[in-house]
Amino acid sequence: MLNQQVNETVELVDRKLEEYLPQQDIMQADLINAMRYSLLSGGKRIRPLLLLEFCRICGGDVHAALPFACAIEMAHTYSLIHDDLPCMDDDDMRRGRPSNHKVFGEDTALLAGDALLTLAFETMLSEESVRLVGAERAVAAAGILAHAAGAYGMVGGQVVDLMSEGRVISLKTLQEMDENKTGALILAAAKMGCVLAGANESQLKAAENYAKAIGLAFQIVDDILDVTGDSETLGKPVGSDDENSKCTYVTLMGLDNAKIKALELTDAAVRALEGFESGTEVLSQLARELVSRDK
Amino acid sequence: MLNQQVNETVELVDRKLEEYLPQQDIMQADLINAMRYSLLSGGKRIRPLLLLEFCRICGGDVHAALPFACAIEMAHTYSLIHDDLPCMDDDDMRRGRPSNHKVFGEDTALLAGDALLTLAFETMLSEESVRLVGAERAVAAAGILAHAAGAYGMVGGQVVDLMSEGRVISLKTLQEMDENKTGALILAAAKMGCVLAGANESQLKAAENYAKAIGLAFQIVDDILDVTGDSETLGKPVGSDDENSKCTYVTLMGLDNAKIKALELTDAAVRALEGFESGTEVLSQLARELVSRDK
Repeated sequence: MLNQQVNETVELVDRKLEEYLPQQDIMQADLINAMRYSLLSGGKRIRPLLLLEFCRICGGDVHAALPFACAIEMAHTYSLIHDDLPCMDDDDMRRGRPSNHKVFGEDTALLAGDALLTLAFETMLSEESVRLVGAERAVAAAGILAHAAGAYGMVGGQVVDLMSEGRVISLKTLQEMDENKTGALILAAAKMGCVLAGANESQLKAAENYAKAIGLAFQIVDDILDVTGDSETLGKPVGSDDENSKCTYVTLMGLDNAKIKALELTDAAVRALEGFESGTEVLSQLARELVSRDK
Repeated sequence: MLNQQVNETVELVDRKLEEYLPQQDIMQADLINAMRYSLLSGGKRIRPLLLLEFCRICGGDVHAALPFACAIEMAHTYSLIHDDLPCMDDDDMRRGRPSNHKVFGEDTALLAGDALLTLAFETMLSEESVRLVGAERAVAAAGILAHAAGAYGMVGGQVVDLMSEGRVISLKTLQEMDENKTGALILAAAKMGCVLAGANESQLKAAENYAKAIGLAFQIVDDILDVTGDSETLGKPVGSDDENSKCTYVTLMGLDNAKIKALELTDAAVRALEGFESGTEVLSQLARELVSRDK
């Protein structure tokens, strides 16, 4: 039942993503194909799910929130495309397929990332979106994403990540970096869902606590999978952290402690959901699945 | 007098740009320095000027429009940083100084561009901006920029530009490409200024006609300067179009016809300003200066 609800939501998001993408145009065909390739590559759609679920349990209109759910997935996808570029992590594979620049070339991949980030804002600020949620909430939600994606959020975390390669960093620095690099967008998804539904302060606080906990747990599990995972299941090579001499939760805490920490954070996330009256089953299941995933 | 007005506006924009940049932070120092380097490198601030002037002659509050003027300069700067990257035009010089990636490395330059685009939206959607102009106008102005910067605007034009290198294209294709690559942001500046001031339809139409004419004239003059200009004055090498076997207005129309076309467009721009009652002196001077510039 829960799975069916999740699947239906993911299908809805996928359909809308396709709808929001620019239509085929002979002049920009390459760009549009590159955008489609990465955006419609079967991602887990965790951020849209978070946004829509928090919107729903705060009494909001899930359909009106869809443009915003799609926008956060576009912003996430742009970051993956740029992260994979040769001048960044230089990853050839992503989600089991050649990464964007391996298929379309570095120039088009760069621009496809740029265009997806821009499309995220275009989608949130479109007349249709504003009609659905009102200008006040559209501005608030889009502003949360802008802040989370920028220099104090995701991009800031990526820079620190680049600087840290081959260096020993403290657990505190690693955690701060991850709060920005991956945590900021997950937190933004939860906050945007609340804001779009007109949630109250205590609901917003509970959503933030949930999102911070699963954001960190998500990153710890990523590090664990880079050691214990199977490259075929993951769709990307394992051992890359070790190869890049990266400090991870596994190298800094040890594998067992990292696993314990991830479970503790999951419990904290599920507890945070007690701040809502009902309807939190999907979110608690999502927290548990993120920590027990094998990809 | 006019020059003084322009200089004061440019100084105001420069001061605000500095204010909106992220503050120094030891963790992201590299990123912030890279953002500052390109954003505060003494650009002509044509797009902010256009936005603020159209806002002013439509009776709007220029100070309230400043965040939006700064945002369009951030979006313009991001496009220059990404355009200069080795996988794109691979330009080593920009505005008389080494381009961003030559100073900060490709990875940081890429992220500085990403962060500037994101900061453009963060600035427009901030609580302060929304308080100054209201949510409705903030959304409308930010939406115009998002559309103009994306796949159907600036980024779309860049892709077509990349595809056209070394190929013979028609004058029509060249013009369509430029309408996107450089024209879209200039048009957006004019439209945003009008929208922020609550302009009427006929003012908006006149502003669009002016912006389309100077946008195209601007690009034609760029092509002329690549042939006739002085690399020291320009702050970048001349003859790069020829080196890259690019079709330009000069190669397609001849130098003399290109000059005539630029002057005709300037006249058309100045005529379009007749749609406004008064106060258009700065804008007509700007149109004339753009066509007679030597850099």
